[in-house]
Amino acid sequence: MPATTVPFRHLFGPGPTNPYPEATLALSRPLLGHLDSAFIAAMDHSCEGLRQVWGTSNARTLPLSATGSAGMEAAFVNTVHPGDVVVIGVNGLFGERMCDVAARCGAEVVRVDFEWGTPVDADRLAAAHPNPTIIAAVHAETSTGVRSDIAALGAVKGDALLLVDAVTSIGGIELRADDWGIDVGYAGTQKCLGVAPGLAPFTINERAWERRVAKPQSWYLDLGMLGGYVGEASGAKRTYHHTAPVAMVVSLAAALDRILDEGLADVWARHQAAGVALQAGLQEMGLELFAAEGHRLPELTTVKVPDGVDSARVRGYLLDRYDIEIGAGVKQYASSVWRIGLMGPNANPGSVELILAALADALRHA
Amino acid sequence: MPATTVPFRHLFGPGPTNPYPEATLALSRPLLGHLDSAFIAAMDHSCEGLRQVWGTSNARTLPLSATGSAGMEAAFVNTVHPGDVVVIGVNGLFGERMCDVAARCGAEVVRVDFEWGTPVDADRLAAAHPNPTIIAAVHAETSTGVRSDIAALGAVKGDALLLVDAVTSIGGIELRADDWGIDVGYAGTQKCLGVAPGLAPFTINERAWERRVAKPQSWYLDLGMLGGYVGEASGAKRTYHHTAPVAMVVSLAAALDRILDEGLADVWARHQAAGVALQAGLQEMGLELFAAEGHRLPELTTVKVPDGVDSARVRGYLLDRYDIEIGAGVKQYASSVWRIGLMGPNANPGSVELILAALADALRHA
Repeated sequence: MPATTVPFRHLFGPGPTNPYPEATLALSRPLLGHLDSAFIAAMDHSCEGLRQVWGTSNARTLPLSATGSAGMEAAFVNTVHPGDVVVIGVNGLFGERMCDVAARCGAEVVRVDFEWGTPVDADRLAAAHPNPTIIAAVHAETSTGVRSDIAALGAVKGDALLLVDAVTSIGGIELRADDWGIDVGYAGTQKCLGVAPGLAPFTINERAWERRVAKPQSWYLDLGMLGGYVGEASGAKRTYHHTAPVAMVVSLAAALDRILDEGLADVWARHQAAGVALQAGLQEMGLELFAAEGHRLPELTTVKVPDGVDSARVRGYLLDRYDIEIGAGVKQYASSVWRIGLMGPNANPGSVELILAALADALRHA
Repeated sequence: MPATTVPFRHLFGPGPTNPYPEATLALSRPLLGHLDSAFIAAMDHSCEGLRQVWGTSNARTLPLSATGSAGMEAAFVNTVHPGDVVVIGVNGLFGERMCDVAARCGAEVVRVDFEWGTPVDADRLAAAHPNPTIIAAVHAETSTGVRSDIAALGAVKGDALLLVDAVTSIGGIELRADDWGIDVGYAGTQKCLGVAPGLAPFTINERAWERRVAKPQSWYLDLGMLGGYVGEASGAKRTYHHTAPVAMVVSLAAALDRILDEGLADVWARHQAAGVALQAGLQEMGLELFAAEGHRLPELTTVKVPDGVDSARVRGYLLDRYDIEIGAGVKQYASSVWRIGLMGPNANPGSVELILAALADALRHA
């Protein structure tokens, strides 16, 4: 695998995206020890940056040392006691995954299905059980390109904890964990945060912390032990839990600096503008969007494959001719939907023009 | 956190080590999608390289997407059924951790303690229970610098599965999973493999696979689902499980190429020579080694802090004056033992001379 054969890809799929240049450069810095004060400063810095992109003041906000799916597991494994009722809104693959993960923690899962391509509905979730321990939903469904209204869930959650997947929303669209009543949230780095995959930004508030499982079935994701790992508060004494993925955390800190230097509101606006332009352009080409109008994610657009077009052939043409990766659909939509992501540094007008032109070419010639 | 303030450290502690240059360079390559054929080739390549450093032909050999401690969790969570008897040799911190992790999986843990600084004894482990499901031990105890004889365990395991922690041995000293009878093994990337922390090289043979837990309590570490993630065999169709930590896997592949290009036996010899020279030099300085003679790891040397010397002050002096990180001892040995690692690219004569000279200076002036 000589270095010269590594292709450059425009990563316009559902993630990973191309990282912010600052994140890539940070990966090549000299490695630090995981107990080095310079690394602890980088970890503190990344936790503080994460608080801002989460929209939270939660002290317990940190990058877990695994990918976003481990964030999902950490969320449930630390909050579900055997027999707890967990109401889960399912409008795509990641809601389905929540049901599997919660059940493995001993939850009594109350699954509430919504048509793929539509958002979850707060009132239906609230009505699904009189006294749930947890209500869980996905903010931005990566499988369908749909945004659900998390603030509405917070307004009806009652005594339940609100547990939210923000993998594809964090750093790309409005996310206000505290204002919306999110008690536990997890995310990933490889979408709008513009970092390579490998970390799960996580946050948990005092309300959820007080109800946590004392000794979760997972040692690796036991938040009670991880408290010492990042310091309960900035500057607090660290206790060793596991060796932090040093390079990835430093890379995350660099990307968060890049995002916050630009300004979070401006970053959201940049994703919004790119997504709106892409969706308008696709419709002008005569293509039909998949996600329900009014609930479309700007950072991840789903579009129907036209009748008679071979989905895989078009994706292959884009990859071969333009080094552009877009995503297939998921499950029953594998060959009938494309997923086009413009995330992190790719949320810009040039990327919009590039994918529109390349796709038009592919539809003519693939 | 401007880039200009990042120090260069000689990472001579118990890990992470400074990575091989090839591993660092690979981190800065253009990112690939996790389903890109170029990435799948890199993943296959890294699995094949891992088979060689593990000394195994196990098809199910892969880098798990989290740090070494998650490898430990994956080993137990996939093999321990509730009530299974798990005999664990404890001669340091990581044996202790095994007891905690196995218990969370519902194991009946039979803990067999050995004095810290000495190896586990195969006969005592075999005699601890008439019919254990699993016998587990740490090949190279990172907390004490001791090597245990895994081949001897394989010879007495009987019907039990042999589960081995190779975090600090893989890529540094002789490791022959198949010849020694290791059924399940996990490791880390940040020690002798010379890669940043963040992945857990893992291997499981057919014997253990047939006895695995059908639906483990962990979704993220469920090997049954991960089979499709890496392809049951090279070239097999991939199924999506989670987004691979692409940059880290490519970095691992590059480090494995570096190691295998040098030749595994030569890499082991290089670690051996550096460790022997370091240990001789320390004794010539009048220092006393901690690990029992005949069982000392070359890649990680433990040495007693001389009476009247302030351990932390010496470590601080090394860091401030020489940018050298060494490790403190663990638990009851926190202030009475130092841990000096020469791993991966740091296993060379220059590093030996540097740490010996710097430590001599520190003992005179700190």
